[in-house]
Amino acid sequence: MSDVTVTEVGLRDGLQAVAAVMPTEVKCEWIRLAYEAGVRSIEVGSFVPPRLLPQMADTAEVVKYALTLPGLRVCALVPNLRGAQAAFAAGVHEIPVPVSASAAHSRANVRKSQDEMIAELRRICELRDTLSAATRPEVIAGIATSFGCTIQGEVPESEVERIALACVDAGADSIGLGDTTGYANPAQVRRLFRRLRGAVGDRLQGGHFHDTRGMGLANVVAALDCGIRCFDSSLAGLGGCPHAPGATGNIATEDLVFMLESMGFDTGIDVEKIVRSRQVLKDALPNEPLYGHIERAGLTKTYRKAA
Amino acid sequence: MSDVTVTEVGLRDGLQAVAAVMPTEVKCEWIRLAYEAGVRSIEVGSFVPPRLLPQMADTAEVVKYALTLPGLRVCALVPNLRGAQAAFAAGVHEIPVPVSASAAHSRANVRKSQDEMIAELRRICELRDTLSAATRPEVIAGIATSFGCTIQGEVPESEVERIALACVDAGADSIGLGDTTGYANPAQVRRLFRRLRGAVGDRLQGGHFHDTRGMGLANVVAALDCGIRCFDSSLAGLGGCPHAPGATGNIATEDLVFMLESMGFDTGIDVEKIVRSRQVLKDALPNEPLYGHIERAGLTKTYRKAA
Repeated sequence: MSDVTVTEVGLRDGLQAVAAVMPTEVKCEWIRLAYEAGVRSIEVGSFVPPRLLPQMADTAEVVKYALTLPGLRVCALVPNLRGAQAAFAAGVHEIPVPVSASAAHSRANVRKSQDEMIAELRRICELRDTLSAATRPEVIAGIATSFGCTIQGEVPESEVERIALACVDAGADSIGLGDTTGYANPAQVRRLFRRLRGAVGDRLQGGHFHDTRGMGLANVVAALDCGIRCFDSSLAGLGGCPHAPGATGNIATEDLVFMLESMGFDTGIDVEKIVRSRQVLKDALPNEPLYGHIERAGLTKTYRKAA
Repeated sequence: MSDVTVTEVGLRDGLQAVAAVMPTEVKCEWIRLAYEAGVRSIEVGSFVPPRLLPQMADTAEVVKYALTLPGLRVCALVPNLRGAQAAFAAGVHEIPVPVSASAAHSRANVRKSQDEMIAELRRICELRDTLSAATRPEVIAGIATSFGCTIQGEVPESEVERIALACVDAGADSIGLGDTTGYANPAQVRRLFRRLRGAVGDRLQGGHFHDTRGMGLANVVAALDCGIRCFDSSLAGLGGCPHAPGATGNIATEDLVFMLESMGFDTGIDVEKIVRSRQVLKDALPNEPLYGHIERAGLTKTYRKAA
């Protein structure tokens, strides 16, 4: 068991923001390299209509490959019941379902009101409950735009709390807070995670931060202070949100792992192997900007990989 | 009074790492723009032999201009008594004196052992004490390589404490901890600042972080947690240390100000004006890489400039 779980989301959050479609075999190679580096949780794609996101059209195939890797937690995002049916049929372990704290973002991202989306989440959880307990996947409600919205601006904390409580009531196994738009600051992260911990208790598990304004890692530290131990990140900071303009890039997996291990947390991940795996992106997406500091700066002389 | 003092150090820490010599009038324009944006503390250069750092040869002239701006705290780094004599004669308000926590870095940076450097600091403080109390400048001991060294690797925390205590004993008005090498992580920052607060009390005032591994702002948050309210930063992250390879770039002033103001601290600084002032670097140093996220990402819709 790792102290902190790092979920690689570049194959979903990263690639959905990239115009080019990455071939299935390249995705599988990326997953293989991440797995070899010690990553044990990967969001490999999303079950969405191919006409909306052709980049994700092969998610079932990618899931099939990922499931061959022992001990790997295979996640795939789904925006609706139809996607959940496909994800369950594919055999994923975990499905993040995005529920926007911003009404405007909800319309733009999933073309549903928040109440409609929560009703959809309830149907997804009901479907989950029909599955055998031994292989039943977990449903994570990812509260998108929890810290502000590029369309509507302010997102009241009371609204994030209302949505989170509604997601728990709908049957979500756990809740994550997402800074979809790169709006969060560390003071806000502490305030909101503490408030939500009070509201939904231990179901509050994940933090999803973008590095749009350079505060991604600072926000992780703020969430760590609130007991959060699950973070999403993307190799080389690949990422963004098509409906959140300027929200470029998740926090970079290699920088996150370097920071966590330096702080004494065990992620189970070899940061040098992660850095080397960037080659797969350089080869497959030569025109895409890549982020992350560790490749350029190298490890410190004092870096010790936690056993 | 600002909640948090941001000291612009790009004219010293930034320009000393840039091969080109910035003309005096451009430095003065940079200072003017920073001042107009609300910056009230600027390290305008250093008093070092011009044959070692020709970029700093005009520091006396730059100080003279900076002193014309009402309410601006004018700082200039000095590595020895001769530099302090020049700085005092020029009329600076504050002189940071670098004292390395790493023995190896001390030799490389100032060609002195740590004990020799502390003896030099004592002579500087004795000279300070001969000046009229009304205009007496402050001497800050900047403990360089407090979090690790690119030459010797580990720097024991006990050694940082020993050096800090010796600096106080030598007469330093205040102590700052510098992550000269970009080695610090937030857990270490909290641990060391707390330890040093215990050792030297309220004299511990400043944090100087580089963003080499992307943790600069996270380290600021960790230091804020320890009550630190004075931070160095550099416009567009210009910077580095000639004797700390790979230690590229201070934290970017615009990103630091954006984060602090977003968190509810008052810096007195208009972040949009700071972003616009990057033009002076683009014009004067067209080949120099510039960092910082806010120019690209823009302000958030929820950003409120503290009154």
